[in-house]
Amino acid sequence: MPKHEIAPRLDAEAVNALLKTVYPQLNDTHAAYRALEIHPGGCTVRLDADERHLRPGDTVSGPSLFTLADIGGYVLALSHAEPDALAVTTNLSINFMRKAAAGPLDGHCRILKMGKALMVFDIDIVPAGGGDTIAHATGTYSLPPRRR
Amino acid sequence: MPKHEIAPRLDAEAVNALLKTVYPQLNDTHAAYRALEIHPGGCTVRLDADERHLRPGDTVSGPSLFTLADIGGYVLALSHAEPDALAVTTNLSINFMRKAAAGPLDGHCRILKMGKALMVFDIDIVPAGGGDTIAHATGTYSLPPRRR
Amino acid sequence: MPKHEIAPRLDAEAVNALLKTVYPQLNDTHAAYRALEIHPGGCTVRLDADERHLRPGDTVSGPSLFTLADIGGYVLALSHAEPDALAVTTNLSINFMRKAAAGPLDGHCRILKMGKALMVFDIDIVPAGGGDTIAHATGTYSLPPRRR
Amino acid sequence: MPKHEIAPRLDAEAVNALLKTVYPQLNDTHAAYRALEIHPGGCTVRLDADERHLRPGDTVSGPSLFTLADIGGYVLALSHAEPDALAVTTNLSINFMRKAAAGPLDGHCRILKMGKALMVFDIDIVPAGGGDTIAHATGTYSLPPRRR
Repeated sequence: MPKHEIAPRLDAEAVNALLKTVYPQLNDTHAAYRALEIHPGGCTVRLDADERHLRPGDTVSGPSLFTLADIGGYVLALSHAEPDALAVTTNLSINFMRKAAAGPLDGHCRILKMGKALMVFDIDIVPAGGGDTIAHATGTYSLPPRRR
Repeated sequence: MPKHEIAPRLDAEAVNALLKTVYPQLNDTHAAYRALEIHPGGCTVRLDADERHLRPGDTVSGPSLFTLADIGGYVLALSHAEPDALAVTTNLSINFMRKAAAGPLDGHCRILKMGKALMVFDIDIVPAGGGDTIAHATGTYSLPPRRR
Repeated sequence: MPKHEIAPRLDAEAVNALLKTVYPQLNDTHAAYRALEIHPGGCTVRLDADERHLRPGDTVSGPSLFTLADIGGYVLALSHAEPDALAVTTNLSINFMRKAAAGPLDGHCRILKMGKALMVFDIDIVPAGGGDTIAHATGTYSLPPRRR
Repeated sequence: MPKHEIAPRLDAEAVNALLKTVYPQLNDTHAAYRALEIHPGGCTVRLDADERHLRPGDTVSGPSLFTLADIGGYVLALSHAEPDALAVTTNLSINFMRKAAAGPLDGHCRILKMGKALMVFDIDIVPAGGGDTIAHATGTYSLPPRRR
């Protein structure tokens, strides 16, 4: 996707503030998730994984990684399409490649297509300090009709 | 899958007890999830969705439905393969079809393939009282080598 | 999906005639694919797999099974939404479970959601005579706006 | 995936020769598909799409793009794991983003994980001359046990 064609309307700080308003879990069970930075056609989201996010084997759980992927798509929709809380995931396919220990994980997201009704994106989840891919997901968000 | 070929080794009560031992979140953030019944080649898992599981629009969130799907696969692996906590999801693809309000949701799971190293399953998530499919997922669990 | 809510507008014979008109490959490389029967909320499609559809190991190839799944969704869209050739697949996720030898394969398809703009479906591919699932897929078709 | 960790054992010419030996369709219905180049941790595969690969609307068909993705994974398995024809796809999830006209299409593939039994990869399919992503897929290949 040519990056200049699709400029974000909100930065990470504005998106995080919006998320906290509309998404009560982000103040509670999801407090560990946030937008780190937003750029044309993509963004990075972070999970500061602690004990709550682990599963047997002391590895970050599938649902925690799914949540990071889903929030990555939501941040892309809020920042690049419309700052409207009503975008919804229509599908998400995730592959788990490696175990991740507790600690910061970064999800590098890119918009594969921004249509009128649908946005397709993918995300590479890696340890914040760098390293092999832990999980990779592709998803589709349904965008609400523009309000006037 | 011919149902008689693959008999469960554990019932719902035994699996729920095992889950609580090995999966601390099931006593805490995931307390609303449990196995409802287990039969040859399949099982039903339930989410009693409350406010914690909602997203903007007062609908059960994608991560909550993903968690139900993932637990469905885990229950199948524990009951039909090996009561070993170390089975891990390798991929999961989920489609979200309809909004679900707070309340009980049932995930009807079936084993599509039980191999030596991998188990493939799918799940239909519907309102507990019956109704249209809310979400459908297909996933693969990697099974640990049998212990002796 | 309550079956009575969504009645097909075309039967298998009419769909096969339409497919041959709009889809030239179905007279040529895809001649082995056809609709077998259509019922409210679902259909069965068949692949008569011969040597052209095999891959190393003398098993029906992944692309051949994908094509059957894709045609299954197309038959559902043509028969249940609009007999309009311009419905297009937006995504398809397929799991390959078992090898299939040359011979007839049936794909049992069901509509998981018929929306205004999107149709979600799944398909179980089994040997025509019955037996274990060979492949399972879930897909989404984008439906063209209704013409007048 | 750190590129230096995983060096290919075969180049594009050797893989194409191997494909023609073991995969009869590549001399016939699949003659338009080939490996273009192979590098550590990835490869590029090409489809020279002509009339045979089009669907209604004169756009390259879903099965043709799926086949390119599947061949991309096969080329990665042959070149990076074992030059053994018996690697098989276990699942593949593909998103179709834009229409593609007849002409050359390139699939840029990367290995997300090379395990002992499974290889996970993804592929971006773009027009050969450059441009927006036409389709994106993620897949898993099951690798045969090493022969001696």
